[in-house]
Amino acid sequence: MKKIINKPEDFVDEFVEGILLAHPDLVKTPGDDLRVLVRADAPLTGKVGIVTGGGSGHLPLFKGYVGKGLCSGVAIGNVFSSPSSDQIFEATKAVDGGAGVLYLYGNYGGDVFNFDLAGDLAELEGIETRTVLGRDDVASQPKDRRLDRRGVAGIFFAYKAAGAAAERGDSLDQVAAVAEDVVDHTATMGVGLAPTILPTTGRPSFELPDGEMEIGIGIHGEPGSRRGPLETADEIADHVVGALLEDLGLGEGARVAVLVNGLGATPLEELYLLYRRTHQILAERGIEIVRPYVGEYATSLEMAGASISLLELDDARLQLLDAPALSPFFQER
Amino acid sequence: MKKIINKPEDFVDEFVEGILLAHPDLVKTPGDDLRVLVRADAPLTGKVGIVTGGGSGHLPLFKGYVGKGLCSGVAIGNVFSSPSSDQIFEATKAVDGGAGVLYLYGNYGGDVFNFDLAGDLAELEGIETRTVLGRDDVASQPKDRRLDRRGVAGIFFAYKAAGAAAERGDSLDQVAAVAEDVVDHTATMGVGLAPTILPTTGRPSFELPDGEMEIGIGIHGEPGSRRGPLETADEIADHVVGALLEDLGLGEGARVAVLVNGLGATPLEELYLLYRRTHQILAERGIEIVRPYVGEYATSLEMAGASISLLELDDARLQLLDAPALSPFFQER
Repeated sequence: MKKIINKPEDFVDEFVEGILLAHPDLVKTPGDDLRVLVRADAPLTGKVGIVTGGGSGHLPLFKGYVGKGLCSGVAIGNVFSSPSSDQIFEATKAVDGGAGVLYLYGNYGGDVFNFDLAGDLAELEGIETRTVLGRDDVASQPKDRRLDRRGVAGIFFAYKAAGAAAERGDSLDQVAAVAEDVVDHTATMGVGLAPTILPTTGRPSFELPDGEMEIGIGIHGEPGSRRGPLETADEIADHVVGALLEDLGLGEGARVAVLVNGLGATPLEELYLLYRRTHQILAERGIEIVRPYVGEYATSLEMAGASISLLELDDARLQLLDAPALSPFFQER
Repeated sequence: MKKIINKPEDFVDEFVEGILLAHPDLVKTPGDDLRVLVRADAPLTGKVGIVTGGGSGHLPLFKGYVGKGLCSGVAIGNVFSSPSSDQIFEATKAVDGGAGVLYLYGNYGGDVFNFDLAGDLAELEGIETRTVLGRDDVASQPKDRRLDRRGVAGIFFAYKAAGAAAERGDSLDQVAAVAEDVVDHTATMGVGLAPTILPTTGRPSFELPDGEMEIGIGIHGEPGSRRGPLETADEIADHVVGALLEDLGLGEGARVAVLVNGLGATPLEELYLLYRRTHQILAERGIEIVRPYVGEYATSLEMAGASISLLELDDARLQLLDAPALSPFFQER
């Protein structure tokens, strides 16, 4: 196991400690539990709080998006495991500024269970909550079951937009509507080339014969829609972008934001090859890329592979995307 | 070979094309050659230009640091190969604003040869140049041969400081002195866990038995100072930071900037484990980390491993580090 770690069971606490030591001006733990992080200036009186969370191993997801104009707090689970309802509840209390709290996270069973439980606890304390689920992975379910889709890298767009809405003083219902609207107009598909090795078990997150790839793979190595010989960068982009455009029903005249995301071990050079072809495909179809994002936004430890996300833009979404933001891993001027 | 690429021989041109398509507001090619990139607003009349360059495969090095408050231009070689003197010369002419051009790049034979040749060509055209070499890799040569050391991730600090000096209008001699001063106070050491596979040859960049690591490895897989069983994150940090402190002669009361850099395939989580221990070691010795940088700043495609760099700070260096900068891969407000 080629990892730079100490004891596997200390992995999560120790990297969170590293984040806290590196960015004390941006994030803090409200109590004693290292698994709960909130922005350093939380709570913001009169403003809606946004709490996210999920399993570890996806940096900069989720902890990296806690900050100004993004999420207000995060509950941190073990690698690929949900945080507890107590941790989510603690984050909720720490970011509550009296205007309610939005739960915004990816659609996974354990997370949904624990966030719902935390929401019940919050209600007993008089904190109003709403829930919006990231469900952008088009390969995880067909379109007629889109509400059951998993959430992957595209949740970045929802964080950015909902965070901007909360920052400008929108109400809880308005912030939730912004997040829902962005989720509804976001689609992602990934391709996996090689698995990660889980630090605690030493096991690979999935099995894949040499020279093969899996189209539609999830960020925990969940099976995709198709497995086959490794294709070229252009072929992969053709397949993925074609599926995304069909899913979102986008054609000539549309404007989009594009996120080409590395899953951990894939070099930035290869992400720019995918971006290049994505740009060509969209230009051919008369679709304008208004905002490009290329880099590691949601990973799966050292999994090799990438995902492409599209967000259909209108003026309102673009304005929220361009609003200022500052967190340990993302800033927008 | 698990890579998302098209034809290996098109790899470099295609990812540069991707960068140009994604960031037309920040960078441009002055002519027809995709291997020469300059900032979109080049040349800046009356200001010193800074040209860097080197082999490809190290993103965000070098292309990622072309922009406001950083380098003015870059000449781009094939993977792990020097750019040509013609390409460097073309970059030089494109960024020349009449105040001269600093060549700032890593100390590798091929690069030195071609940059020197380009400098001769520039002189014939009446463009004054100076050269400062990144040579921060303490494992590549002992301290009494420090001028022969290779340049690795620590060149980021020199880009940042020299770029800020050029932006504020310093003369060529002053910008060169700033770069030299930062190089003189920077030390880096890396550790390699697994090689990259070169896209053109399909060969690994170095050989390493399973379960071993190489301390002091270079960013092309050059041999380090010691090979042995893989240690824990804390042991690696103890060894590396200890060597850096001794090399720089730092003790109680010193102030430093720290760069924990991923070499490609190592997850951000593991970089934060290294940062955590680095912070602890420095705190124990009464050394203050004034600016922490954690992420991928200089890679070797999908090589597994990391490096730690220290820059000793004084007020002048800190001010330059904090000056505004904006490039495709780095921004400072």
